[in-house]
Amino acid sequence: MTAKKITKITPRTLKGFRDYLPEEMIPRQEMLRTLEDVFRRFGFLPLMTPALEYSDILTGKYGDEGDSLLYRFLDNGKRDVALRYDLTVPLARVVAQYPALPRPFRRFQIAPVWRAEKPARGRFREFYQCDGDIVGSNDVVADSEIIQMGAEMLISLGIEDFTIRINNRKVLSGLMSDVGVEPGEEEMGVLRTIDKLPKIGEEKTRDLLSSENQLNSDSIDRVFDFLSIQGSIEEILNRLSGFFAEGSIGELGTKELKEVFSFLEAVGLSEKLAIDLSIARGLNYYTGTIYETFLGGLPGFGAVMSGGRYDGLIGTFCKEDIPGVGISLGIDRLLAGLEELNLIKKKATTSSVLVTIFDEDLVAPAAIAAKLIRDSGIPCELYPQAAKLKKQLKYAERTGKSLVVIIGSDEHEKNVVQVKDLNMSKQFEVALSDLPSWIQSRLT
Amino acid sequence: MTAKKITKITPRTLKGFRDYLPEEMIPRQEMLRTLEDVFRRFGFLPLMTPALEYSDILTGKYGDEGDSLLYRFLDNGKRDVALRYDLTVPLARVVAQYPALPRPFRRFQIAPVWRAEKPARGRFREFYQCDGDIVGSNDVVADSEIIQMGAEMLISLGIEDFTIRINNRKVLSGLMSDVGVEPGEEEMGVLRTIDKLPKIGEEKTRDLLSSENQLNSDSIDRVFDFLSIQGSIEEILNRLSGFFAEGSIGELGTKELKEVFSFLEAVGLSEKLAIDLSIARGLNYYTGTIYETFLGGLPGFGAVMSGGRYDGLIGTFCKEDIPGVGISLGIDRLLAGLEELNLIKKKATTSSVLVTIFDEDLVAPAAIAAKLIRDSGIPCELYPQAAKLKKQLKYAERTGKSLVVIIGSDEHEKNVVQVKDLNMSKQFEVALSDLPSWIQSRLT
Repeated sequence: MTAKKITKITPRTLKGFRDYLPEEMIPRQEMLRTLEDVFRRFGFLPLMTPALEYSDILTGKYGDEGDSLLYRFLDNGKRDVALRYDLTVPLARVVAQYPALPRPFRRFQIAPVWRAEKPARGRFREFYQCDGDIVGSNDVVADSEIIQMGAEMLISLGIEDFTIRINNRKVLSGLMSDVGVEPGEEEMGVLRTIDKLPKIGEEKTRDLLSSENQLNSDSIDRVFDFLSIQGSIEEILNRLSGFFAEGSIGELGTKELKEVFSFLEAVGLSEKLAIDLSIARGLNYYTGTIYETFLGGLPGFGAVMSGGRYDGLIGTFCKEDIPGVGISLGIDRLLAGLEELNLIKKKATTSSVLVTIFDEDLVAPAAIAAKLIRDSGIPCELYPQAAKLKKQLKYAERTGKSLVVIIGSDEHEKNVVQVKDLNMSKQFEVALSDLPSWIQSRLT
Repeated sequence: MTAKKITKITPRTLKGFRDYLPEEMIPRQEMLRTLEDVFRRFGFLPLMTPALEYSDILTGKYGDEGDSLLYRFLDNGKRDVALRYDLTVPLARVVAQYPALPRPFRRFQIAPVWRAEKPARGRFREFYQCDGDIVGSNDVVADSEIIQMGAEMLISLGIEDFTIRINNRKVLSGLMSDVGVEPGEEEMGVLRTIDKLPKIGEEKTRDLLSSENQLNSDSIDRVFDFLSIQGSIEEILNRLSGFFAEGSIGELGTKELKEVFSFLEAVGLSEKLAIDLSIARGLNYYTGTIYETFLGGLPGFGAVMSGGRYDGLIGTFCKEDIPGVGISLGIDRLLAGLEELNLIKKKATTSSVLVTIFDEDLVAPAAIAAKLIRDSGIPCELYPQAAKLKKQLKYAERTGKSLVVIIGSDEHEKNVVQVKDLNMSKQFEVALSDLPSWIQSRLT
């Protein structure tokens, strides 16, 4: 016989990837259920698409930078495949692929996406998106309702202090047309530079517009004239009305902005909204209303919820041009924000009761007691082996239990149990048949 | 200007991958919520691990065939990575990587896994697993409770007719030792052949044991002596008791089987159980109790829930040998089974109410009516644009709505709405302020 060399594999996660341990997962799952309930209240339907897609489904929609961040490889059958980069492009594929789906089509999807970005604090290569979209309507009623739903989501999570900052790509396109920038990559380049304004300031933005985007100084001035349009929603809408020529795309965008705000005012959301003409959104595919949402009390935290209208995207997959509009909630960033705002707490357990096993001969009575408790709907753990009571009690304390059920042979004979209340350091004798109701009244 | 060539990308999914459209997702999500609630009732905690792992975390645990089915590639940083193949090995990594996790550790995880298998009816390359595991106890109390929880899950889903077929790897190892087969790959080879018995029959199994596994005819006879041990649970346990030498691993396995059945009898599950000595489970890492679950009324449908004890697996990642036991429920296969048994129905919608938009000037009243309905907790859809009423009614019918709310200018002035009951083909005038309670009483 030869001695086998045993190599231990170091347990580790990939850079930019993470495990969600229970204390994070418990509040996370509660949050996801709340969000799903809001989706349902708004009539959105669940959809799930594969993690892997043919690469050509994904490329060419996110801009060159996006394409370079795809997890792309050849599978065992030499197919060129990639992990999804967002949930919007797979939705566009689905809508084109299944023409029998009723339209307007409202769907939601909560799922991970993958981007090979440089990891940073709060930025991961795998992260969860939570998307809601309305496909098949080119009316800003859909845009407005998506924004309304986004606001309802945050409110349902107990967040009151937030601002949804709204803009419209047609307004930006109007500006681009005025300064002689061609639609397509050239326009996207300018918009990406403008998108950096809040981070890098006016001077650097002007420099970039000149050096990177080849705008002359008159054009740069018009861009900043435009960006200087600030104030209340009413003021901005008024100033915008005079800014663009009649019949121009900029005027159309202005009209859309007005309609969105009129809808959202009707459903009582004005106070949560702002117009922000500097918002451009980095992705190629937006064509109308766009929005980003920021939490009050967390300046510099970044957007937690954003999206917009993409009327050309689905048309890349089929002959018909099908309009769409959506919103995407960054689950992980939002959770981090809620933690910082003390609106959510890590939780180590979902059950408050431990049933101990006194010795090997008393496994069955312990199992029966645990079953009684669970059958009444109360979560409970059975310690999974006979062990010293001290050890089992220590485990109960460590995992946040309130009540510990103990059944020795005396108790078993008398059909009773001992229940130790860890919060009160008191012990009670309870008849087995009364156990579920006794626990219920203790826990509430 | 140059004319751009527009290439349409054909919308399609990869072979072996699938989209879950809403009519499948709606019952699926209901099922998952039920399963999560059972996990919680048994004190299991949620965990989520990344889709991608370093390849060496995954290889060497599933056998050579499993390794060859990994979706494995070099990422942008030339790291050798792979998509997870199951949820058990990532759990083992987590337990080794975070020694501060309390033990015993009970976790559940519901997530997709990827295997580059030949696709077939009901077999996909991406499919969802639903796993529960107890880590840190080597006592069969844990095995028993996992099996009990599995049974509770099926019962919670309305399935009454199922059998959990239980075996023990130690019993099989005892047999292997008796016929002179070495532990490790050689033993796995024989067990894999035995695993095929229900599919290929005795004769072909004998042939394979001789040709593939080099067993002589005495050994093959002893194998079939062993496999002939059948009957009631009590009979099998009695016959097994005499089959193995005292102090052998086979005897230890027999004792474990007895303890598992004694526990499960105490919690009233005997009728759902059987001993099946031919079950071996294909994976390398099992070391004790193993089980597979079959639905009654669906012969030949395959196992919907299976698992077992793996006491060596976590030790491949750390110095300490940490025992574990788990169960895995095949979500997609189970759903297919429930559909065949008529225990679940496809569902096209989650909301029964559509609020129509009469014309562009009446968007706001419609939005307000929809908000009123939703605020009272009733799911409802707002048609996302002004359109001919006929078109909106057709959409309502197509998507399974029961009630359609209509607000023309007369209704708006009088603060009332018209509600069309599609099931009764009747129309009612309802005061706006009464709308939520009126709908509530109609829908229940």
